Amino acid sequence: MTGAQARARFREGLRVPTVDWASRYTQTNLIAVPQEHAYDLLLFAQRNPKACPVLDVTDPGSTTTALAEGADVSTDLPAYFIWRDGVMVDEVTDARPYWRDDLVTFLIGCSYTFERALLDAGVPLRHHEEGVTDPMFMVNRPCRPAGRFSGPLVVGMRPIPPDLVATAIQITARYPSVHGGPVHVGDPAALGIQDLSKPDFGDAVKVGDDIPVFWACGVTTQAALMASRLEFAITHSPGYMFITDVPDTAYAV
Amino acid sequence: MTGAQARARFREGLRVPTVDWASRYTQTNLIAVPQEHAYDLLLFAQRNPKACPVLDVTDPGSTTTALAEGADVSTDLPAYFIWRDGVMVDEVTDARPYWRDDLVTFLIGCSYTFERALLDAGVPLRHHEEGVTDPMFMVNRPCRPAGRFSGPLVVGMRPIPPDLVATAIQITARYPSVHGGPVHVGDPAALGIQDLSKPDFGDAVKVGDDIPVFWACGVTTQAALMASRLEFAITHSPGYMFITDVPDTAYAV
Repeated sequence: MTGAQARARFREGLRVPTVDWASRYTQTNLIAVPQEHAYDLLLFAQRNPKACPVLDVTDPGSTTTALAEGADVSTDLPAYFIWRDGVMVDEVTDARPYWRDDLVTFLIGCSYTFERALLDAGVPLRHHEEGVTDPMFMVNRPCRPAGRFSGPLVVGMRPIPPDLVATAIQITARYPSVHGGPVHVGDPAALGIQDLSKPDFGDAVKVGDDIPVFWACGVTTQAALMASRLEFAITHSPGYMFITDVPDTAYAV
Repeated sequence: MTGAQARARFREGLRVPTVDWASRYTQTNLIAVPQEHAYDLLLFAQRNPKACPVLDVTDPGSTTTALAEGADVSTDLPAYFIWRDGVMVDEVTDARPYWRDDLVTFLIGCSYTFERALLDAGVPLRHHEEGVTDPMFMVNRPCRPAGRFSGPLVVGMRPIPPDLVATAIQITARYPSVHGGPVHVGDPAALGIQDLSKPDFGDAVKVGDDIPVFWACGVTTQAALMASRLEFAITHSPGYMFITDVPDTAYAV
């Protein structure tokens, strides 16, 4: 399945997590903010590149992107969050009723991009096996603020068998523009995570005897919306990503 | 020599190219623009990341940076260009007489960061041998525009022995946030370069039987100043870089 085929299904209204969809094409996070806040958000991304690698930014009001021909970012995701004053007030499958002419849309790299490379190397991915979205946590590391934006780092956790942790690190480090190598390996408490079974976003997965490994996550931008109480924004729903036409391999170093 | 020691010398007024200075510390390009143009420049950099990898952006009017403790970016470079309406109108060793409260300063990655790794691997660097700045050329590849900014890609050329081209590519590709691997190998005419002995910036070097290899260069921002006729800007003088406290190795993947 191509990115275009997946987008067409979501445009028709299908609401499913995008894990395993169009699995050789890069998926992205989405955050659209009023133009007056676009500089601060772009600077926040620059100052926190591990969490917020920017893959494209639209012109104000535009819903097209260089990453996907014919795509409309206001309709082609399976689910959107609508935010007011830092609170998620609605979840929709079509964001057009909320879209505004002054919105600037940021498409931010997603770690799904390196998951095919992990699977190809024999690294099992629990959330794929369980058919759910990976668990994400707001942790005790503050982002570097920029103007209107501040907030905690958000990480995604994957349980990795001990003998494959090195492989997983080597592979993901080759993808620096989509979060790159992990930010932490092992003890969740060191990140301030009390209970791995209660993620802030996404779904819990079985950890068992595997090592919990934590990668920076683009949902960091949503934590920044909360912390910064921005008056208005539209984002993807965590796990319900935008699928581009860009092959995952294009982001490998 | 540390970055701080080098900066102190330049602050006192020493005007020399920074090649081989504080050779294990990352050097950067500098471009300071009025705040009203900062968003367009940050977006131009995001849209042309190979040429314009942003390592830090100051707050408006500030001359300090997270990359170098105690540094003042308006005094600590050996030479600055002053720009009006896209034309370089003055070259100074102290930019304070021209500095303005509304300037936002961008520090942009420089390929000098991977030169120590090249030398350590036995790849000879002609401009080091000759004690000059590497030759830079404006080429026939347009950058992706952003608001007020457009212009051609600028590349730096290094002659590499044929049996070391693969090594040079492998090593530099590990530094994606400081230009990464080359954008072109071989025939200069394919880039629209008529004469390798007449660079647009920097100094000519002997090529001989080596292969000319071209890396994207942060001076692309100066070509954008020219093409965009920005009313005011301050930059480093090509080859006279800002030296940070960050080890070169920090940018290796």
